[in-house]
Amino acid sequence: MTAPVNSYGLLESRFRRLATLQEAAGMLHWDMATVMPDGGRSARAEQLATIEVICHEVLTAPETADLLDSAEMGKAGLNDWQRANLAEMRRTHTHATALDAQMVEAMSRAVTACEAVWRVARPKGDFAAVFPLLSEVLNLTRQSAAARAEKLGCSPYEALMDRFEPGAREAEIDAVFADYGAFLPEFLGRVLEHQARLPKLVEPKGPFPQAVQKDLAKRIMAQLGFDFHHGRLDESLHPFCGGVPEDVRITTRYSEDEFVQSLMGVIHETGHALYERNLPQDWRLQPVGQARGMAIHESQSLLMEMQACRSGAFCKYLSRVLSETFPNNDAAFAPENLRRLYSRVQPGFIRVEADEVTYPAHVILRYRLEQALIRGDLQLADVPAAWNEGFKKLLGLDVPSDREGCLQDIHWYDGAFGYFPCYSLGAMTAAQFFEAACKAKPEIPAEIEQGKFATLQGWLNANVHGLGSSLSTPEIIAKATGRPLETAVFKRHLERRYLN
Amino acid sequence: MTAPVNSYGLLESRFRRLATLQEAAGMLHWDMATVMPDGGRSARAEQLATIEVICHEVLTAPETADLLDSAEMGKAGLNDWQRANLAEMRRTHTHATALDAQMVEAMSRAVTACEAVWRVARPKGDFAAVFPLLSEVLNLTRQSAAARAEKLGCSPYEALMDRFEPGAREAEIDAVFADYGAFLPEFLGRVLEHQARLPKLVEPKGPFPQAVQKDLAKRIMAQLGFDFHHGRLDESLHPFCGGVPEDVRITTRYSEDEFVQSLMGVIHETGHALYERNLPQDWRLQPVGQARGMAIHESQSLLMEMQACRSGAFCKYLSRVLSETFPNNDAAFAPENLRRLYSRVQPGFIRVEADEVTYPAHVILRYRLEQALIRGDLQLADVPAAWNEGFKKLLGLDVPSDREGCLQDIHWYDGAFGYFPCYSLGAMTAAQFFEAACKAKPEIPAEIEQGKFATLQGWLNANVHGLGSSLSTPEIIAKATGRPLETAVFKRHLERRYLN
Repeated sequence: MTAPVNSYGLLESRFRRLATLQEAAGMLHWDMATVMPDGGRSARAEQLATIEVICHEVLTAPETADLLDSAEMGKAGLNDWQRANLAEMRRTHTHATALDAQMVEAMSRAVTACEAVWRVARPKGDFAAVFPLLSEVLNLTRQSAAARAEKLGCSPYEALMDRFEPGAREAEIDAVFADYGAFLPEFLGRVLEHQARLPKLVEPKGPFPQAVQKDLAKRIMAQLGFDFHHGRLDESLHPFCGGVPEDVRITTRYSEDEFVQSLMGVIHETGHALYERNLPQDWRLQPVGQARGMAIHESQSLLMEMQACRSGAFCKYLSRVLSETFPNNDAAFAPENLRRLYSRVQPGFIRVEADEVTYPAHVILRYRLEQALIRGDLQLADVPAAWNEGFKKLLGLDVPSDREGCLQDIHWYDGAFGYFPCYSLGAMTAAQFFEAACKAKPEIPAEIEQGKFATLQGWLNANVHGLGSSLSTPEIIAKATGRPLETAVFKRHLERRYLN
Repeated sequence: MTAPVNSYGLLESRFRRLATLQEAAGMLHWDMATVMPDGGRSARAEQLATIEVICHEVLTAPETADLLDSAEMGKAGLNDWQRANLAEMRRTHTHATALDAQMVEAMSRAVTACEAVWRVARPKGDFAAVFPLLSEVLNLTRQSAAARAEKLGCSPYEALMDRFEPGAREAEIDAVFADYGAFLPEFLGRVLEHQARLPKLVEPKGPFPQAVQKDLAKRIMAQLGFDFHHGRLDESLHPFCGGVPEDVRITTRYSEDEFVQSLMGVIHETGHALYERNLPQDWRLQPVGQARGMAIHESQSLLMEMQACRSGAFCKYLSRVLSETFPNNDAAFAPENLRRLYSRVQPGFIRVEADEVTYPAHVILRYRLEQALIRGDLQLADVPAAWNEGFKKLLGLDVPSDREGCLQDIHWYDGAFGYFPCYSLGAMTAAQFFEAACKAKPEIPAEIEQGKFATLQGWLNANVHGLGSSLSTPEIIAKATGRPLETAVFKRHLERRYLN
């Protein structure tokens, strides 16, 4: 057996190669989503599959397991970062080896088939058409959840979440979501009443030329701290943040009829980008140097979008910028009108169009259905009815068809059970981070009013970005805010924003 | 030992992985040259180096050598394509294993250092500054040439050429170049005299907006047969053809003062692109499915640019297109004026700016100096004097400084000894291919006058593109044109174009 210290060093080399290949794959994914001609699809799929297979081979090679065992025996000789790195290596290894090759292949085939049928079934609202394939995906997901859970020592649903948000625990999320679920109906009623009493909103009038929108987006990105020497803004059908920390690539799409969706999308993705860009430089290409998980990642995009840039303070800055950018919209661009435009509450059926107040309801519904499906308490055939019933309870609306219901999101049809909670955990974490940052640095809101973000960025770098995966999500939140994650701050934020 | 037939199958899998990784690297190179922000450089270098190391590991693994031995023993059981594929595998393997890891690393380090100093030394014309580093590159090149030559069973200089143009032989190239070198001085004198007697040329007047140039380029590319469903046109500092056969990416750069350089560059790169796009689909990702070598590759770009698109026939078509594209240039865009603009002969010092007639002189000079350097017949310190003397003999001009002399090209400073002959072999091969195509399909010139290229493309696909590497370069030329490569056709072409 290799000596423990050497083992750890050899593991660093292995995981460095792994991360480098994953970065290469990340760039190829960016290209595929932004500039690749359609005819390049099959060649690209082969390139990505080959890189994935090589990564899997490196990770599951018997020597990797031996090195991990040996390095763990010599853990006492490592410093905190190294120990955290080793723990992340072990977690990655556990996930990679939890499923046998047969299961991985079966899942990959099931998911590909199911997603293709879902694309046709969704616009028709035809759940029955995708049912047999989704049923297969769900069966395999249950089996793989059980296999992962055994290795990770957690519940099967937690094992699924662990792929996106390591260490996520159902009991904690149950409590947080129960609290918000109880708060929402009455609060939503008050918000809608309050909104109805306000003067009529003035809508900005277009057209808003794409080139002008792009310049505006880049100007705002630069204000937020995005460094174009280390990144790009491009267009894609579905906006995303990709690339690598030295070369972060975000995307958006433009409609010339209105600019808010694109601009807020850019701000959102910039939040993700700044997290990636400011991960600990010394730990580049090591597991401990990666982003902590998707709940923290979402917290960074939502902090930027929801906490900082849909605020009254930012709307004062934005009002000036917009008046310089798009002529003849003075009334619409008045700061208070902007603030209200960017914080309009309107319950609806579609998650991705939901406002800040009702968004968690969409997530809570999916989370509870996922839990029940994985536990086996809910039959797949009963999902549409359960969805509609749950939606009525949470938001008081009757879902007109499965198209606006359980067919709307790609996640289940793509095998991504366990992802949904990250969105709302992120929103709540964002509120808690932002409040803590403003408490520690009271000048932040006044700076935001001037379009300045350096102090906020400094706090985020010190308390979140620079930690990588050296601490767990609960540890990061507790260290940065002095408390575990709770709904109180998020609710306070909503009350302040939506009832004043 | 694995059974021969199985060995061959296993080799196909190995080389498929290798080619797929190289395609991924190719896309990352494209990205680096076109869209990557500067700050992404070091991360990208690491991605590319990692992929290269993995390819090298696959290729030099002991099992690969065993499989090759075993498959060669069972060669009789393979068909022609498989046998040719196996031979290409062996050639690739021989190159990869000819140098030990120490030599590869020393060369990589020497070349990186030398190229960096050359970038500073060139504008100053300071050969002495780069001399010690180039001396190191040359020493290592001599050693590696000897090592490769031993394995390949050829001369050291041939071993260097073999990296770019497999199987190239000095005796054949010597003969071809001697013939052209003897022909040139007197011919050039006649061309210049003839040109001087013609009426004054009318230069097109700009500005020529970049967006309009880009649309024009795409229109012409489509006429030539470029399929935008399987490729792109972008901008980069140095134009190139990259990507993969399903997704061929060519680049150009624009100056708003004039459009000819960019347009002819696009046509040139489209020639490369069509070769890549039409390689044998059944042999994708196998060595035998790749382009034959750089001489054939250059022949495809030069056939399109020099033979087809600088012709009088194409100028008739182009005249109509240009008049629709750029206003107020009717006299300049007259077909005969265009033809003369695109075939102006003007001896000069810089290879990349040279016309079709004098270009081979630049290549012949470099080829002879490279041979002498590798053989040891010429000392590096004597290169500037030898350059200037050779240049005077071939083109009758006195080189004013090493900036316009032996410092102008990156090749030597980058370790690419043996590449230069490909350019002129390509030009001569292009003439021979084009003449054979027009003989086989006499309608080609009339079609080109209409901007139509389908018949020409059909001939090229059948006689060149679709063969991949299944035949050697001399075999491809002989089969397609009925003769070995000779200067006669090229000289005939020049006489027809430049003395009429």
